[in-house]
Amino acid sequence: MSIITSNSVGIVQAQKAHFDTQISLKSGEALPQFDLVYETYGTLNVDKSNAVLICHALSGTHHVAGRYAETDKYPGWWDNLVGPGKPLDTNKFYVIGVNNLGGCHGSTGPASINPLTGKPWGAAFPIVTVEDWVQSQARLLDYLGIQQLAAVIGGSLGGMQALEWTIAFPDRVRHALVIASAPNLTAQNMAFNEVARQAIITDPEFYGGDYYSHQAVPRRGLRIARMLGHITYLSDDVMGEKFGRKLKDDIKYSFDVEFEMESYLRYQGDKFAGEFDANTYLRMTRALDYYDPAKDFDGDLSVALKSAQAKFLVVSFTSDWRFSPERSKEIMQALLDNELSVSYAEVTAAHGHDAFLMPDKHYHDILRAYLQSVEVW
Amino acid sequence: MSIITSNSVGIVQAQKAHFDTQISLKSGEALPQFDLVYETYGTLNVDKSNAVLICHALSGTHHVAGRYAETDKYPGWWDNLVGPGKPLDTNKFYVIGVNNLGGCHGSTGPASINPLTGKPWGAAFPIVTVEDWVQSQARLLDYLGIQQLAAVIGGSLGGMQALEWTIAFPDRVRHALVIASAPNLTAQNMAFNEVARQAIITDPEFYGGDYYSHQAVPRRGLRIARMLGHITYLSDDVMGEKFGRKLKDDIKYSFDVEFEMESYLRYQGDKFAGEFDANTYLRMTRALDYYDPAKDFDGDLSVALKSAQAKFLVVSFTSDWRFSPERSKEIMQALLDNELSVSYAEVTAAHGHDAFLMPDKHYHDILRAYLQSVEVW
Repeated sequence: MSIITSNSVGIVQAQKAHFDTQISLKSGEALPQFDLVYETYGTLNVDKSNAVLICHALSGTHHVAGRYAETDKYPGWWDNLVGPGKPLDTNKFYVIGVNNLGGCHGSTGPASINPLTGKPWGAAFPIVTVEDWVQSQARLLDYLGIQQLAAVIGGSLGGMQALEWTIAFPDRVRHALVIASAPNLTAQNMAFNEVARQAIITDPEFYGGDYYSHQAVPRRGLRIARMLGHITYLSDDVMGEKFGRKLKDDIKYSFDVEFEMESYLRYQGDKFAGEFDANTYLRMTRALDYYDPAKDFDGDLSVALKSAQAKFLVVSFTSDWRFSPERSKEIMQALLDNELSVSYAEVTAAHGHDAFLMPDKHYHDILRAYLQSVEVW
Repeated sequence: MSIITSNSVGIVQAQKAHFDTQISLKSGEALPQFDLVYETYGTLNVDKSNAVLICHALSGTHHVAGRYAETDKYPGWWDNLVGPGKPLDTNKFYVIGVNNLGGCHGSTGPASINPLTGKPWGAAFPIVTVEDWVQSQARLLDYLGIQQLAAVIGGSLGGMQALEWTIAFPDRVRHALVIASAPNLTAQNMAFNEVARQAIITDPEFYGGDYYSHQAVPRRGLRIARMLGHITYLSDDVMGEKFGRKLKDDIKYSFDVEFEMESYLRYQGDKFAGEFDANTYLRMTRALDYYDPAKDFDGDLSVALKSAQAKFLVVSFTSDWRFSPERSKEIMQALLDNELSVSYAEVTAAHGHDAFLMPDKHYHDILRAYLQSVEVW
C-alpha cells in the first residue's frame, strides 16, 4: 500500500532558480548572484491569482509537503496543512515553499561556493535579515511570473516574514497569515539565541566559521543549541505529560541518559547536528534578533505598518511561552490602529510554540475557514 | 569610611571541620573521610537552642554573610538577610553556613585529593544527593555540639535540603523555611540541567571529568551552562525591563556583543567559568534532578512527609517560572495533609527565581515576622 494518501501532494521535486543580478542586503553587503531552491504544489491559475507563499522558520526548508520518493519516511514539514482538501488546499491554491537565503538546503548560503574565491563562503557569508529574505522571495515571484500573492503564511520566524511582506510589498500580497509570531523578540528569546550561538562559536571545531576548509563540523555546539531550542519549543506542561520524571531504568547515579527526557533531547540534538549547517543556524537566529519593524518608528508598530494593505489572520497558542499570545495581540492592535482587516485566534493548545506545526483540529479549522475566504479568480 | 555597616556581621572567617569516619552515600558509594567548610554568625546560646542552618543552592557557598576583609567588594551571598537586626537576626540566632559535600569552596569535592590515590578525585568523586547533604550537615551539627536546629532555611535547591531535614531528622529541626523550591524538578527544569551538563561534558577540555590532571578546564561548557542558568533565574519581564532590546551601539551585523543582554550573559558566563568547578556543577544539577522524596511512596508527597514534625514557612514568587508557586503549593498541601503547622506566602515579585535572593521589603517582612516567632531559650 502506498504511503501517498489521496490528500497528499504526492511525490514532489525541488527546483532551483538562479539569479545573476546582485541582491543588496540590509547590512550594506551584497551577493553578486544567488540561487533559491523551491517547491510548488498545485497549479498556478491563468490569472496567476492563486499563489500562496510559505515562509519557513529557524530550521525549516522549501520542502513543505509531499515526499521525494514512495520510500521517504517523512513528508515535508507542513504536510499536515498543505494538500488537496487540506486547510491550505492545493486544489485551489498554487503553493510555493522556498529555502531562505543563507540556508543550508540548496539556496545560496555559507556552505555555498563563493564565486570570487572558488571556496565556501564560510564566515564571509553576509548576515541576512527578514527584510532580505522578503526581497529575495519577491525576486522568486518575479521569476515565476507572479505579480501578487493571494496569501503569504508563516509561523514563528516565518510569521515575521509574512508580516514583513505586507510592509515591503503592500500591493503584492492580499492576505497575510501570521502564526505563533511576534513583532520582535523579547530579551529572553534573544538570550536563548545568544546561548545557542555561543555554544556554536566557542566550539573548537567552529574555526571562526571557516570549518569547511578544516574538514571540521562544530557538532557539539550545534547539538547544544538544538537541545536548548527543543526545550523552548515545548511547553512545561507538555514536557511534563510526554516525559515527566520517567526513568529509562533505575537511577544509576551517573551523567548518562537516565531520564527519558534526556534521551529525547540528546537524540534531537545529535540528529540536527548531523544535518544542519552551523553557519546557517547562527544567521537564522541573528535574523530573529534583528527583526523589529517598529525600530525605525520610535518603537511604534502602528506607524511601521502604515503602508500595509493586506488582510490578516493572526493566530497564537495559549501555551506558547516563546511567542506568547500577548505578542500576537501587539500585532493585532497595530493592524487595528491602521483600520486593516484582521482576524485573531488564540488557540487553546498544550504543545507550546510547536503547536503551530501540529494538526490540531480547532487550529486547522480556523486556517481552513480563513483560506476558503481568500478569493482567487 | 568602613563598608562594614552596623547591621553587618562584619569581618568573618571560614572554618573547616574534618570528619574521619566514613559517610555512606545514597548511591551506595562512600567517602572514607571528608571536610566541611562553614561559617557562623552570632553566638550559640547556653542551651544551644538558637542555631539556624542555611542550605545553599546550585552555586552557593558557606560564605552567607559578612566580608573576609574591609576591602572585600562583595559580602556573602545572603548578606541582605543575615545580620544584627536583619530578618535572620544574629542578635538572636546562631547562624551556620556550610559548603556542601561535592562543592568547590573548601568542602571535600571532585577537586579534592583522593586519599587513596594522592590525586584529585575528578570523575571518581561520587554523585552526592540532597539526602547525603543533610546527613553530612547533621554530622556538622554533632561536631558543633548542636542537637536541634531552631530552624533550617534554604531557597531553591537549598529549600529541598530544608524539606529533607524535616524528613530525615524530624526531632532535630523545629522550623523549616522552604523558599522558591519544589518537591522535585519538572521535566523542563531537568531538561535545562541536561543541556548545561552536556555543554560541560562534551567540552573537549573535560577529559571525562579528569581535566585536573590535564591542566585543563572545561571553561566553554561551564560558561554556556551558566549563561543558560541566568536566563532561567530571571523572569521574562525582568529581562525585558533590565535589558529589553537595548543595543550597546548600532547594529553591526555580527555575532559579537550587540545587545546589552548579550554583554550581561557573557560576563556572567565568563566570571563563573573562571571561579567554579565543572565537576561540582554537574553534581549539583544531578542532585536537583534526583531529589524526589515522594518517589518511594508512589509519588505521594503527603506520605513522604509523614514523619515530619517541624513547623513550616513556605514562600514562592509570582514570576518564578523555574520553581513556580504551584510547586510550593504542592509542598503546602502535603504538609496540611499531615496536620502540620504551615504558613504560606506567595510574594508578588518581578525578579523570577532570583527573587529569593533579593531584599524585597514584603518578602523580608514575612521572613522577619516568621523568624521573630521562632522560640529560643
